[in-house]
Amino acid sequence: MFFIIGELINSTRRTVGKAIAEKDEPLIRRLARNQLEAGAHVIDLNAGQSLEGEVQDLLWLIGVVEDELGKDVRLAIDTSNPEAMEAGLKTCAGQPVINSISNEKGKENLIALAAESEAEVIGLAMGEHGMPKTADDRVEETRALLAKCDRVGLNRDRLYVDMICMSVGSSPEQGVHVLNAVRRAKQELGVKTFIAASNVSFGLPNRRLLNRTFLAMLVDAGLDGAIMDPTDKGMMDAVYAARALSGLDNYCLQYIKQQKRKRRK
Amino acid sequence: MFFIIGELINSTRRTVGKAIAEKDEPLIRRLARNQLEAGAHVIDLNAGQSLEGEVQDLLWLIGVVEDELGKDVRLAIDTSNPEAMEAGLKTCAGQPVINSISNEKGKENLIALAAESEAEVIGLAMGEHGMPKTADDRVEETRALLAKCDRVGLNRDRLYVDMICMSVGSSPEQGVHVLNAVRRAKQELGVKTFIAASNVSFGLPNRRLLNRTFLAMLVDAGLDGAIMDPTDKGMMDAVYAARALSGLDNYCLQYIKQQKRKRRK
Repeated sequence: MFFIIGELINSTRRTVGKAIAEKDEPLIRRLARNQLEAGAHVIDLNAGQSLEGEVQDLLWLIGVVEDELGKDVRLAIDTSNPEAMEAGLKTCAGQPVINSISNEKGKENLIALAAESEAEVIGLAMGEHGMPKTADDRVEETRALLAKCDRVGLNRDRLYVDMICMSVGSSPEQGVHVLNAVRRAKQELGVKTFIAASNVSFGLPNRRLLNRTFLAMLVDAGLDGAIMDPTDKGMMDAVYAARALSGLDNYCLQYIKQQKRKRRK
Repeated sequence: MFFIIGELINSTRRTVGKAIAEKDEPLIRRLARNQLEAGAHVIDLNAGQSLEGEVQDLLWLIGVVEDELGKDVRLAIDTSNPEAMEAGLKTCAGQPVINSISNEKGKENLIALAAESEAEVIGLAMGEHGMPKTADDRVEETRALLAKCDRVGLNRDRLYVDMICMSVGSSPEQGVHVLNAVRRAKQELGVKTFIAASNVSFGLPNRRLLNRTFLAMLVDAGLDGAIMDPTDKGMMDAVYAARALSGLDNYCLQYIKQQKRKRRK
């Protein structure tokens, strides 16, 4: 199974920031339900742009989404603030996802928090030497992150390493570096890989076309999951089609099922 | 540049077979023009299902398409009949494409004909041991074909080897075999690779989705060209997007140009 986190409830998006500020429950409920019904396994919650206080707004989001989708919904707590992360993890009813830990200096307490929790964890392949440029950089950052996780007993079975996607518009070779990093991290380190696929198209026309095409290429390279817009049908199509074509979907049964489900809607 | 042969003028398609039988020039002209304007570099011509006589109908097709698009249009002569191939090659004004040669027994005269011509050549990676199943089979068939081409002095610079695509619906592992064969033929044999992409989806729902997704994955694997429907916008989108994402399109300039051209239409 390809692991999908729905990215839409993010306070950096203008409409969502406004909805959080105004406590607009219907908009949040709609975004949560649409993403779950579209096939997201986890709903990301980001209240980092909050004016009133991130912790309070994050807990409000958790309450609204759990009320809408039931206590067994899985939520990703999307913050770099340890206080908000701790409060969020405690409040979630289902198994949460920590989004995210990294090699950045001063962020070791988030890794420790992740180790103590039972959450799944998104780890960013960056921070020891800043932002990665090449595939080598990404593999080395992943290696450093795994060493830190090992030291505090964070089992890599519940870790997905985000290979850090940048736009091919400004750096044409970034797509190849990310594809190679996904292949190598899997082969050399045996770790699950993850991506925020929509970053690849920043500044370019027809972003959805680039995003879904890149996602298909990444699935073929061995990618295990992504944070993305699951209501973008082209993205879900790309995941299912690429899995069928990469021999990951026996007799294309999941693909056929997804296409039938789509037609019924 | 990714080499695109437009597949639509093929007598095995019911409407085209009928148009050839009835000498329906407008339909053939329209198919030829639409494919050229959509971005095909070469227009494939197949009159193999002809009742009246393949040679005569093939020459008629060449006349109609050259009259519509000018004498510098490039045509692929799509036949396994040496007589039709020879007549077609002689009649084309522009540099033709031979579609196709293979390792099949009794087809050596087509290879000799290709060697004597100045055409570009599609060679099928099959025939010495029947249809290929694995990536190994495809690489071995390619090696055998190259040996035959070398013997008659057919320079591999004008050869594209078709890696033989079969449906993932009946054989789930075929996608992976073809992807690996494309990578290996390039690395191990330094030969240009080619595919008839739409075969991958035979018998499955939403064939266009699978075709364009597979094409993107193949471009990333190093594919050099395809015979396809260039009027299927999703296919052309996939080629340009995948090239941009695979670092084959510096600063995405060709991608941006293609997207602008599309918007103008």
